[in-house]
Amino acid sequence: MASWLQISKNSPFSLANIPFGIISSAKVTSRVPAIAIGDYALNLSVFASSGGFSQLPAIQSHLSVFNQPTLNAFAALGRPVHRQVREYIQAVFRADTPFPQILKDNASLQKEALLPLSDVTNHVPMQIGDYTDFYAGLNHAYNVGVLFRGPDNALQPNYKHLPVGYHGRASSVVTSGTAIHRPNGQVLANPNATPKVPSFSPCKRLDIELELAAFVSTSNELGKPVPIDQAEDHIFGLVLMNDWSARDIQAWEYVPLGPFNAKNFATTITPWVVLIDALEPFRTTGLDGGIRDSLLPYLREKQAANAYDIALDVEITPKGGKPTHISKTNAKNLLYSFPQMLAHHTITGCNMNPGDLLGSGTISGTEPKTQGSILEQTGGKNPIKLDDGSERIFLEDGDSVVLRGMAGKEGSYVGFGDCEGTILPAIKLE
Amino acid sequence: MASWLQISKNSPFSLANIPFGIISSAKVTSRVPAIAIGDYALNLSVFASSGGFSQLPAIQSHLSVFNQPTLNAFAALGRPVHRQVREYIQAVFRADTPFPQILKDNASLQKEALLPLSDVTNHVPMQIGDYTDFYAGLNHAYNVGVLFRGPDNALQPNYKHLPVGYHGRASSVVTSGTAIHRPNGQVLANPNATPKVPSFSPCKRLDIELELAAFVSTSNELGKPVPIDQAEDHIFGLVLMNDWSARDIQAWEYVPLGPFNAKNFATTITPWVVLIDALEPFRTTGLDGGIRDSLLPYLREKQAANAYDIALDVEITPKGGKPTHISKTNAKNLLYSFPQMLAHHTITGCNMNPGDLLGSGTISGTEPKTQGSILEQTGGKNPIKLDDGSERIFLEDGDSVVLRGMAGKEGSYVGFGDCEGTILPAIKLE
Repeated sequence: MASWLQISKNSPFSLANIPFGIISSAKVTSRVPAIAIGDYALNLSVFASSGGFSQLPAIQSHLSVFNQPTLNAFAALGRPVHRQVREYIQAVFRADTPFPQILKDNASLQKEALLPLSDVTNHVPMQIGDYTDFYAGLNHAYNVGVLFRGPDNALQPNYKHLPVGYHGRASSVVTSGTAIHRPNGQVLANPNATPKVPSFSPCKRLDIELELAAFVSTSNELGKPVPIDQAEDHIFGLVLMNDWSARDIQAWEYVPLGPFNAKNFATTITPWVVLIDALEPFRTTGLDGGIRDSLLPYLREKQAANAYDIALDVEITPKGGKPTHISKTNAKNLLYSFPQMLAHHTITGCNMNPGDLLGSGTISGTEPKTQGSILEQTGGKNPIKLDDGSERIFLEDGDSVVLRGMAGKEGSYVGFGDCEGTILPAIKLE
Repeated sequence: MASWLQISKNSPFSLANIPFGIISSAKVTSRVPAIAIGDYALNLSVFASSGGFSQLPAIQSHLSVFNQPTLNAFAALGRPVHRQVREYIQAVFRADTPFPQILKDNASLQKEALLPLSDVTNHVPMQIGDYTDFYAGLNHAYNVGVLFRGPDNALQPNYKHLPVGYHGRASSVVTSGTAIHRPNGQVLANPNATPKVPSFSPCKRLDIELELAAFVSTSNELGKPVPIDQAEDHIFGLVLMNDWSARDIQAWEYVPLGPFNAKNFATTITPWVVLIDALEPFRTTGLDGGIRDSLLPYLREKQAANAYDIALDVEITPKGGKPTHISKTNAKNLLYSFPQMLAHHTITGCNMNPGDLLGSGTISGTEPKTQGSILEQTGGKNPIKLDDGSERIFLEDGDSVVLRGMAGKEGSYVGFGDCEGTILPAIKLE
């Protein structure tokens, strides 16, 4: 598919993508829905109010969703509507568009609605009601389990029967580009001393977690589980996510109720939601783990191809330095799919709402330099060499971390854009 | 303080209380803020628009907060405003009110704004952004620890250094009177078998957890911790909470990331928020646990009296039967205060928002029949006898559980009202 708009062949936002987000700019001072295409954002508020959707009758009674400061109302319209709108926008931008009058030949609307991405500010695209983080990256769970419990007990007995997950902190989910303060907290200066007495300190073991995350589109009522074969239709789309983790705070606090302060200070997501339909061509088989036939029926999917073939990479740039790629992996390294996570989450009757966010868990491969966390690469002691000669066991102040994810090929990439965060020094308490 | 309104001497909503909630009724079809007094709710939307606040100049520019479907906007005004509004409403209802024209002698406004509680529907009073549940009930943590790890290792090493907490599920917080479906999920039919293979089943070990919970009023910015000596001013007020718990689902799922499906199906709260100022007269010393002097400075409070003297009780009523009081305890059985929880929660820079909910953890005494969960009383095997002769090891379908909490004395009780939930059979999956 070629577009009349000039789109770089390496853009993550090709005509095959059309991801949705929330933007503002110096001129557009209130937050509005938009899509990203090439180096531009299309302001959907202006587009809709200028008759941009006039050739899509099905959306006419819902145009107010494009005048909202979040995507929740649009998402709640459901997958068939998302699909129609995405396909319509693709048709508008196609070189052979059947509707040239809408935008291709409409210089004034182009000027008003097409904003250079470099001029816009991105915002968290949905009002997140609840954020849940899963642990479906089998290789990550195994690698971390080996570090803590040795290879024989690396995976807990429940791991291959259910997608382990926990509730996360929604308020501190931020978009790419937000600087992250190194958290303060309680740590054990000497974990082997007896008795264990914590000290107060800036986190010294600050790490990343490379994840995919899914936004929920449509709700289910409290008490009504979402059946596995309907679960995918409750997913709006995916983003990349960096689940920043303070390993030393986590090690001390996490018994018996799980991670808390180690994770609540920030979680960074990419601002453009890639619709689940845009990823459909990249469907592939995930990790099997030998569990497919032994899962309880409420988790059993019809198709084995329940993952996505998305190339992922992690880059660290020291302050004032150059980037080093420290990891390359693929999103298919997951043992459970988002529909399985949703079916498990709701099997108790738990109600989901539009804007709820589900993290996949850290995505790691099995080979060196394919891990989605630094802990897995260094074991907390063997440094990673950066290209400038410096070394990292964990993150240092001033480090910028970028996660990237791309599916497809040159000219028609379906990508997520950068998921960036730079580490600021810990806050000095008064 | 006597009122011109007839208030039963046993009412939890005496003139000394004035708790805030959100109501609707057959006539008041949209949700509006209200206070409870005796057997009535005062519709604050009608009261405000009818000049009810005309003698309180400070609130004039904020009257729109009483036209909202949640208390978030009112809470965000901050503690000094909550205090003025509460004291003003007390003055309006006093027998010797200085403003008789406002309500006492205004029969038409009484008719319009004072609704019998039996005619109103209560709603979750705030839009809950995030819900966090702590574990500050020392006796509960110890009792459960003994069951799982024996008396020598009952408390984890971190327990006396920080308020252990975890993120909970906000979407399934419901108000008193909402029926609760017994959750389905994965359980181990025989926990001692090898290998461990779960089965799918309705929860067979459904339990309660008696807690207090605090609603946050004012926000802190991401990256800016709330200092301990300012933390109380970020708290709007308290409710009673039943953190329903599926013990068998929890036992299987909870390693290594904590409880998830065992808790996400429902959490019941009382609908009337008792302002933190209303509880001030009942301030008392909580559990000490020998930690007061050894806490890290960010958790150290100026005053030792950091708990509240609130009598709590738990009642179970079998379907069609009579209530049995199974437990009586007191809210002072907490090792950490809500300000300590808030200071700990934000020490990493985590941002809180109006409407965030913080649970205390289960409140238990040390004597028989003073525990806040059934598990602690039965150990999962020694039944509780109900007054009708039936026995309970855990909850049965049709059981209604009521939690109650009252501070003060006859004629001037500051109480929470009932926190009720009835167990419905598990949902049959299609």
